[in-house]
Amino acid sequence: MDDDIKIIERKEINVHGAVLIEGFPSIGMVSSIVANYLIKALNMEYVGSIRSRHFQPTAVISAGVPMPPVRIYVGQPVEKKGSICERLVVVTSEFPPPAELMQPLASHLLDWTKQKGIITIISIEGVINASQNPEEHSTYAIASSPAARKLLENRKITPLQNGIITGISGVLLHESELSGQDVICLLSDANPKIPDARAAARMIELLDGFLPKIKLDPAPLIKEAERLEEQLRQAMVQSLAMNVPGQKEQPQVMYG
Amino acid sequence: MDDDIKIIERKEINVHGAVLIEGFPSIGMVSSIVANYLIKALNMEYVGSIRSRHFQPTAVISAGVPMPPVRIYVGQPVEKKGSICERLVVVTSEFPPPAELMQPLASHLLDWTKQKGIITIISIEGVINASQNPEEHSTYAIASSPAARKLLENRKITPLQNGIITGISGVLLHESELSGQDVICLLSDANPKIPDARAAARMIELLDGFLPKIKLDPAPLIKEAERLEEQLRQAMVQSLAMNVPGQKEQPQVMYG
Amino acid sequence: MDDDIKIIERKEINVHGAVLIEGFPSIGMVSSIVANYLIKALNMEYVGSIRSRHFQPTAVISAGVPMPPVRIYVGQPVEKKGSICERLVVVTSEFPPPAELMQPLASHLLDWTKQKGIITIISIEGVINASQNPEEHSTYAIASSPAARKLLENRKITPLQNGIITGISGVLLHESELSGQDVICLLSDANPKIPDARAAARMIELLDGFLPKIKLDPAPLIKEAERLEEQLRQAMVQSLAMNVPGQKEQPQVMYG
Amino acid sequence: MDDDIKIIERKEINVHGAVLIEGFPSIGMVSSIVANYLIKALNMEYVGSIRSRHFQPTAVISAGVPMPPVRIYVGQPVEKKGSICERLVVVTSEFPPPAELMQPLASHLLDWTKQKGIITIISIEGVINASQNPEEHSTYAIASSPAARKLLENRKITPLQNGIITGISGVLLHESELSGQDVICLLSDANPKIPDARAAARMIELLDGFLPKIKLDPAPLIKEAERLEEQLRQAMVQSLAMNVPGQKEQPQVMYG
Amino acid sequence: MDDDIKIIERKEINVHGAVLIEGFPSIGMVSSIVANYLIKALNMEYVGSIRSRHFQPTAVISAGVPMPPVRIYVGQPVEKKGSICERLVVVTSEFPPPAELMQPLASHLLDWTKQKGIITIISIEGVINASQNPEEHSTYAIASSPAARKLLENRKITPLQNGIITGISGVLLHESELSGQDVICLLSDANPKIPDARAAARMIELLDGFLPKIKLDPAPLIKEAERLEEQLRQAMVQSLAMNVPGQKEQPQVMYG
Repeated sequence: MDDDIKIIERKEINVHGAVLIEGFPSIGMVSSIVANYLIKALNMEYVGSIRSRHFQPTAVISAGVPMPPVRIYVGQPVEKKGSICERLVVVTSEFPPPAELMQPLASHLLDWTKQKGIITIISIEGVINASQNPEEHSTYAIASSPAARKLLENRKITPLQNGIITGISGVLLHESELSGQDVICLLSDANPKIPDARAAARMIELLDGFLPKIKLDPAPLIKEAERLEEQLRQAMVQSLAMNVPGQKEQPQVMYG
Repeated sequence: MDDDIKIIERKEINVHGAVLIEGFPSIGMVSSIVANYLIKALNMEYVGSIRSRHFQPTAVISAGVPMPPVRIYVGQPVEKKGSICERLVVVTSEFPPPAELMQPLASHLLDWTKQKGIITIISIEGVINASQNPEEHSTYAIASSPAARKLLENRKITPLQNGIITGISGVLLHESELSGQDVICLLSDANPKIPDARAAARMIELLDGFLPKIKLDPAPLIKEAERLEEQLRQAMVQSLAMNVPGQKEQPQVMYG
Repeated sequence: MDDDIKIIERKEINVHGAVLIEGFPSIGMVSSIVANYLIKALNMEYVGSIRSRHFQPTAVISAGVPMPPVRIYVGQPVEKKGSICERLVVVTSEFPPPAELMQPLASHLLDWTKQKGIITIISIEGVINASQNPEEHSTYAIASSPAARKLLENRKITPLQNGIITGISGVLLHESELSGQDVICLLSDANPKIPDARAAARMIELLDGFLPKIKLDPAPLIKEAERLEEQLRQAMVQSLAMNVPGQKEQPQVMYG
Repeated sequence: MDDDIKIIERKEINVHGAVLIEGFPSIGMVSSIVANYLIKALNMEYVGSIRSRHFQPTAVISAGVPMPPVRIYVGQPVEKKGSICERLVVVTSEFPPPAELMQPLASHLLDWTKQKGIITIISIEGVINASQNPEEHSTYAIASSPAARKLLENRKITPLQNGIITGISGVLLHESELSGQDVICLLSDANPKIPDARAAARMIELLDGFLPKIKLDPAPLIKEAERLEEQLRQAMVQSLAMNVPGQKEQPQVMYG
Repeated sequence: MDDDIKIIERKEINVHGAVLIEGFPSIGMVSSIVANYLIKALNMEYVGSIRSRHFQPTAVISAGVPMPPVRIYVGQPVEKKGSICERLVVVTSEFPPPAELMQPLASHLLDWTKQKGIITIISIEGVINASQNPEEHSTYAIASSPAARKLLENRKITPLQNGIITGISGVLLHESELSGQDVICLLSDANPKIPDARAAARMIELLDGFLPKIKLDPAPLIKEAERLEEQLRQAMVQSLAMNVPGQKEQPQVMYG
């Protein structure tokens, strides 16, 4: 199997010095929900995609625009709804890539971020709640490099010492540890059976500390997220969750 | 897996300025039924095929002519049975291609349409009825470009804002969004368990607005379609639905 | 998967102007039984084979000679047992090739027949009985070209107008329709659960009309065929149906 | 899948004029038991191996030496325990190769035997007992060439006339029939559910006639074989049948 | 499938004259537990990795550092906790490689050890207990070469004479037997259903004899190992066994 991976820029992407959020699907859809929250809340622009014939043959329609399953968004430093957005890049997908594509996909992504001058990658993951008490929730963090560990230290976050991280996040972590790039993986425990919007809200709280110029507010999101939860679940069942504006009862979805 | 896709023209195909209808199998066989209705009603000519060793090894016999599973038809601007046919191209198949072939197949098709000067692609899809009420039916549309969105606007069709479109249609939509080609995807809800002729009739009504020089009449089709429904179902079971002219009770099938 | 198909001639094969019978496995083993009947009845010579590592790794032993699973036989125009044999080529196998090999196999076969000057290919197929009445049997025919259709017409056979033909026969039909070569596919309904010798006898009656210089007699075959039926079934179960001459009760099998 | 087959000679193998016994796994493990009997009884030397990444990743330990799963042994013409050993080559394995490797494996083996000047290949096979009476046992033989058939004739063995031989033996038979090399396939019926030592003893009796300078005695083997039967069965279950010399009750296994 | 295997050195690895311990997963996780015991007890340094897109896409986090699934560690000859560590290399993984990668993986490893001047490879394996008495435990050893057999002899270990060794150890044994490199495989029987810490302790006792400058003490390990047993089992279930220092009840794990 050749990987057939190509990163396509819709136009010149100027993101020198930016932070990239990696949001491939994870347990409880935490990463997808967080990525979509950021895209909407910060009014990020769809600037590119990652393509491979081995990805899901699917278009994701958002605001009437058909887009491929793996997309790149950039947030410009504009003031909007009371928040200042620093230069932020989000890579996200609704569909997990095949296991054998994860290593080449992570390599392509790290090469691209290096070439673009992106300084830090934050990889979002969900993990199954390991606690005895289902009401007790935790978030964790891992860093790939001394500089990335410093970022955790400055935020009084103690990195995870021992464990196993699977998927794109795992490959990004060990590949960047080798190449010396700065990757932080943030994990929130989540319910693996549903899109877990509450876990996403906990992640946004955690993420808020890393994006000083942006004010991320999990409070309204919690409510919004609950509806998303329902919507995404239907999307899985029907392969088509739809929303035609102009029809009555058309909801104001944040998720695209 | 190499895709091994080749577009074969049986003779010089001159379709500059034409509209192409993509009718690969969809939920409820909506696209296949619509494609076959157009081919028969407009007396379209079989002018080419798309071949790959990964497609179903099968011949489709129509009017005694054996044809490969993925075919290209062209309608000439002739007057017939009271209708004027503008230059129309139909690509159709009775068999869905393997998932890993969908991206290269869509790319080949878009390249070919560009090279041939085809101006708009209309992709036909069926979707599962999302309504609570099974008697309530809907059709939807998505456009890949401002020009294609204009075509919807002119027909007072509000495009789908958010959702997920799988298969060839999905890949055509996002690939054309990138290349700037004009693709419209029309969707009708349909019964996924049978060839849904009524859904096809609703699609023909919708399609009628896009083909001004052609008068498409769904009324007689509804009756015809019901019989097709039965016939196609038998074709699936037996891999051979047959119809020898000269034998008594030989039906006047429209589906070829 | 590379196809790895090679046509091997055991010696110079001179079959200019011949008819080729294609007998790859079909429903009810109709094509295999017919091919073997012809080989024995007309005392055809084993002259070549088609090889691929993707074919069944098997030797078929006939008259003490081990042969590969896909074989080519040629009948010389000699008088034998009261019948005149025109130049006839039979390609047959006891094992169906993998689905992905069918298109390249058909292409190799058509290229080879063209290069050898073979004028007509007759492809033998079995189909499931579509009639309500299990006692009612039918045979059908399809032609790939005007010249081939003429052959049907001359024999007062009305070709099948609409339907679906799967497998090698299907690919041969649509590939030859494109290349302009003459392929006729003859179909007999058959019982898909057993080697259906009676269906083979009906096919031989049909085939008789196409081979004027040969007198094919289905009558004795029906009896013989019934025994073959039993033998082939055992061959499937045991992967070795054997017949050592010199031992008592050694049967006079026609099938080799 | 590339075959990745390499024949590795541990040292210069001089086997001009030798007979090669092919003992890949067969029904009832007949070929493996026979090959191992020959190796031990004739004190044959381990001289080479056939390697492919697609073979079982395994070492077979014999007399403390780790060896790959497909091995080549040579017997020198020395007098030992009352028997004279003519130059004999044995190729054997405990594991069947994947089906798609059988054709290239047979081709490599035939090329190698030709290049080495080996004159005859004897391929050992087990077949399921086709007799009604389970107490009645048979052996069979097939030859690929007139010279090989002469060898059967001289030993008053009537070759199998019709049947199907699967696996390496089948491919060796038809490939050598084409290339003109001399292959004899010897078959003994066997119990497919266990390593059938008694079937192996019958095979050794048959083989004895082909190796005039060697006196093969099935009598002691029958007893030995019964124990092997038990041992091999355990090897399958545990992936490790072991035998540490120096420990009490260490058996004198012939199988290595 | 290309193997895509690369050995990556994080820095100049100088291990001339060293012993390499191969600890890929085995029955009862014996090799993984032993490898991790050595790494921690001897304070070994993480110096390299083996990468392939076909390995598990995963990061193993140890002491806060994300590492790929197949890792290389080197122990420097320093005095620590009362033990002198001779130059030792450990290659280990928590995940077994795909079967088709085992042959190329072993080849890469043997080439690398040769190039690096490593003198002996000790491969650690677990085997299912073949004894009737579950309380009776055994260890075994196999050597690939006369020099390696000498190492066993000097330690009064009688090598396994006959048997089958599967996996990386098997391939290492027969490949090194051919190339003349010195490989010793040590086996301990183990419980295949759990990470068997007691079997690992027996292995460490056996290993102690081969590493004269190191004092390996199985006694404390047995206790530690029991806890590991629990931990590893959870890691399998959850894909994330975690351990954040600073939180209360944070255990002093040796396993990283």
